Amino acid sequence: VTDIDPTGIDPTDIDPTGVITAVYEIHGDDAETRAAALAVEQSHELPTELAPPIAVERSLGVVRELTGGDSAIATVDYPVGLAGGELPQLLVLLLGNVSLQPGIRLVDVAIPHDLAGAIGGPRLGVDGVRALTGVSGRPLLATALKPVGLDSAAIAALAYELAVGGLDIVKEDQGLANQPWAPFLERVPLIAEAVRRANAETGRRTLYLPVVDAPVAGYDRQLHAAREAGADGVMVLPGVGGWGALRHASNVLAGGMVLSHPSFLGGFTASPTHGIAPDVLFGTLVRLAGADASIFPSFGGRFSLSREQCVAIAEAARRPLAGLAPALPAPGGGMQIDRVPELRDAYGDDTVFLIGADLQRGEPRAAARRFAAAVGA
Amino acid sequence: VTDIDPTGIDPTDIDPTGVITAVYEIHGDDAETRAAALAVEQSHELPTELAPPIAVERSLGVVRELTGGDSAIATVDYPVGLAGGELPQLLVLLLGNVSLQPGIRLVDVAIPHDLAGAIGGPRLGVDGVRALTGVSGRPLLATALKPVGLDSAAIAALAYELAVGGLDIVKEDQGLANQPWAPFLERVPLIAEAVRRANAETGRRTLYLPVVDAPVAGYDRQLHAAREAGADGVMVLPGVGGWGALRHASNVLAGGMVLSHPSFLGGFTASPTHGIAPDVLFGTLVRLAGADASIFPSFGGRFSLSREQCVAIAEAARRPLAGLAPALPAPGGGMQIDRVPELRDAYGDDTVFLIGADLQRGEPRAAARRFAAAVGA
Repeated sequence: VTDIDPTGIDPTDIDPTGVITAVYEIHGDDAETRAAALAVEQSHELPTELAPPIAVERSLGVVRELTGGDSAIATVDYPVGLAGGELPQLLVLLLGNVSLQPGIRLVDVAIPHDLAGAIGGPRLGVDGVRALTGVSGRPLLATALKPVGLDSAAIAALAYELAVGGLDIVKEDQGLANQPWAPFLERVPLIAEAVRRANAETGRRTLYLPVVDAPVAGYDRQLHAAREAGADGVMVLPGVGGWGALRHASNVLAGGMVLSHPSFLGGFTASPTHGIAPDVLFGTLVRLAGADASIFPSFGGRFSLSREQCVAIAEAARRPLAGLAPALPAPGGGMQIDRVPELRDAYGDDTVFLIGADLQRGEPRAAARRFAAAVGA
Repeated sequence: VTDIDPTGIDPTDIDPTGVITAVYEIHGDDAETRAAALAVEQSHELPTELAPPIAVERSLGVVRELTGGDSAIATVDYPVGLAGGELPQLLVLLLGNVSLQPGIRLVDVAIPHDLAGAIGGPRLGVDGVRALTGVSGRPLLATALKPVGLDSAAIAALAYELAVGGLDIVKEDQGLANQPWAPFLERVPLIAEAVRRANAETGRRTLYLPVVDAPVAGYDRQLHAAREAGADGVMVLPGVGGWGALRHASNVLAGGMVLSHPSFLGGFTASPTHGIAPDVLFGTLVRLAGADASIFPSFGGRFSLSREQCVAIAEAARRPLAGLAPALPAPGGGMQIDRVPELRDAYGDDTVFLIGADLQRGEPRAAARRFAAAVGA
């Protein structure tokens, strides 16, 4: 089972004395009792007086520290073996069952280097994506191909215009899938060809990333089809496709870019007293899962995260994390060209700026040029 | 891409005039504006004045009805083609981006029969699981093997005792994965053998369901290994493994039972003003995705859903749904043998009662016998 996802580290080589540390906010009464119950729920899910001593010794989570009052902070240590060397089980461990209890919010995670290595993280990361695009010294510029409902040829024509205009990444909207108007196997080769043609004219290396979200076996087929069509990577939706889907895509694409989209993940971030802190979800966890870049809804657009939360996401994507490559934060969702200076100031240059609709006001090629000019490209 | 998941219905055969209807509660101000924005966000994600007329005609969501005041109810119709005949994209359509906006709750879904047929739903359903177990006229009884940290042989010995004691389904806890103490490929054949031995002695047909949640390629390997070991089905965690994982499991197992676990899905149900109504999530969506039975946290245990919400989940799992087989609700999470009469009264007989820790107080075999006696088995 463990030889499939060749990260170079065998999970059975993980030092068994390692510890996974999770930090939770506990909102509401009785924080001490609930923190202790959480540590048991997430490890044994069995009252400790019923657990055999060998299991208590090997695999019980413990509350290492509890501070604060109304919003208590509990630091819980779990033996590293509980994750079984795999990301899905790490998520089950961190928040699986307690996601169903109100008032518990995961706000920080630390894992040993060897576990992180077994899970994988970004294959390309910031440097790898920059190498693919040939762009340094400024943010990368991306757009989304939309709306769904256009024919494949019309979408390809739009991709061509945006690539010629100067974007670094032309990705498909998460609304595209395998619809009758532009089926995946028809659409992807056409768009890949259009972007290649644009690149031949401009001398640039604009990347084309189709969205892949078919169910399990179809997912693998889509990844191979994307690679054969000459796509430069893919966009993956872990909220519907599963958390193993990101690293699997980078394994199949072997050198292609993997971009994560936050669709169907908002349940975790909508409440300030529950779920997962946005920087942990869209920074740490998505990066650990293998995203080279992570889309999230930026402040000032159609969504509700604050500037501070968004900057924290960007920092979590790039800061040192158990020896993994840094990932590119990709703020989007109602962004506009005239906000580029403000966004650059907030997020810094190792960022992908994602602008969709604003590039379709007037001629897309001209809008892409204005977007490129806004970062001095 | 579409020939992988053989549901018997080709997605391109779906009647293109069909409509997917979603009902949302919209909490907070400005419901009319936000409902209109939601219909656009979830379909085009592009202001309609910028969308080509052909896309407006083909693929734009529309608010059909808006009622109520403080908590407005918006009924939105989407052209069926937007789902592309696949479950992951249906979920993106229903709540993908707007899950990231506060105050929006998905409370009902209706889809055409041909789309439901293409997605698949339960292969076995209530009747199929009853046929596998040979049990009729009473609820089915299940338990979870735990805690994680035991050796494979110890878990197998526990499984044997519980099966001999009279349980219908012995499943693994979601805390088990591929940990060093009981690796998947070692553990699953041992437990399968132990349950077979119990069945040979009792003449009953207790089902053994290992948990499968390795990342994509490893997932397929685990499913095949489970089948080869003689497991009677599997438990799947769509919250980490992805929503395509349920039907994929039933395709690989071809006749085995697929049980869904709610781990890492609580973000959607923790807030009363956001996310997904529990009956839609754990009843309708999990069933549509292919679960023969759906575990959810019952009222009266360690979790927070009300009796009314739990009964609604059970009804959503079993009521007519676009021609799909009914699924078994599987309430669990802190259940106890002495509550069986109350639970039977609330949920009815086409239910799986899941009791974990309470069967490990004293001798598991004797506890399983008391559990069986409580339903007259």
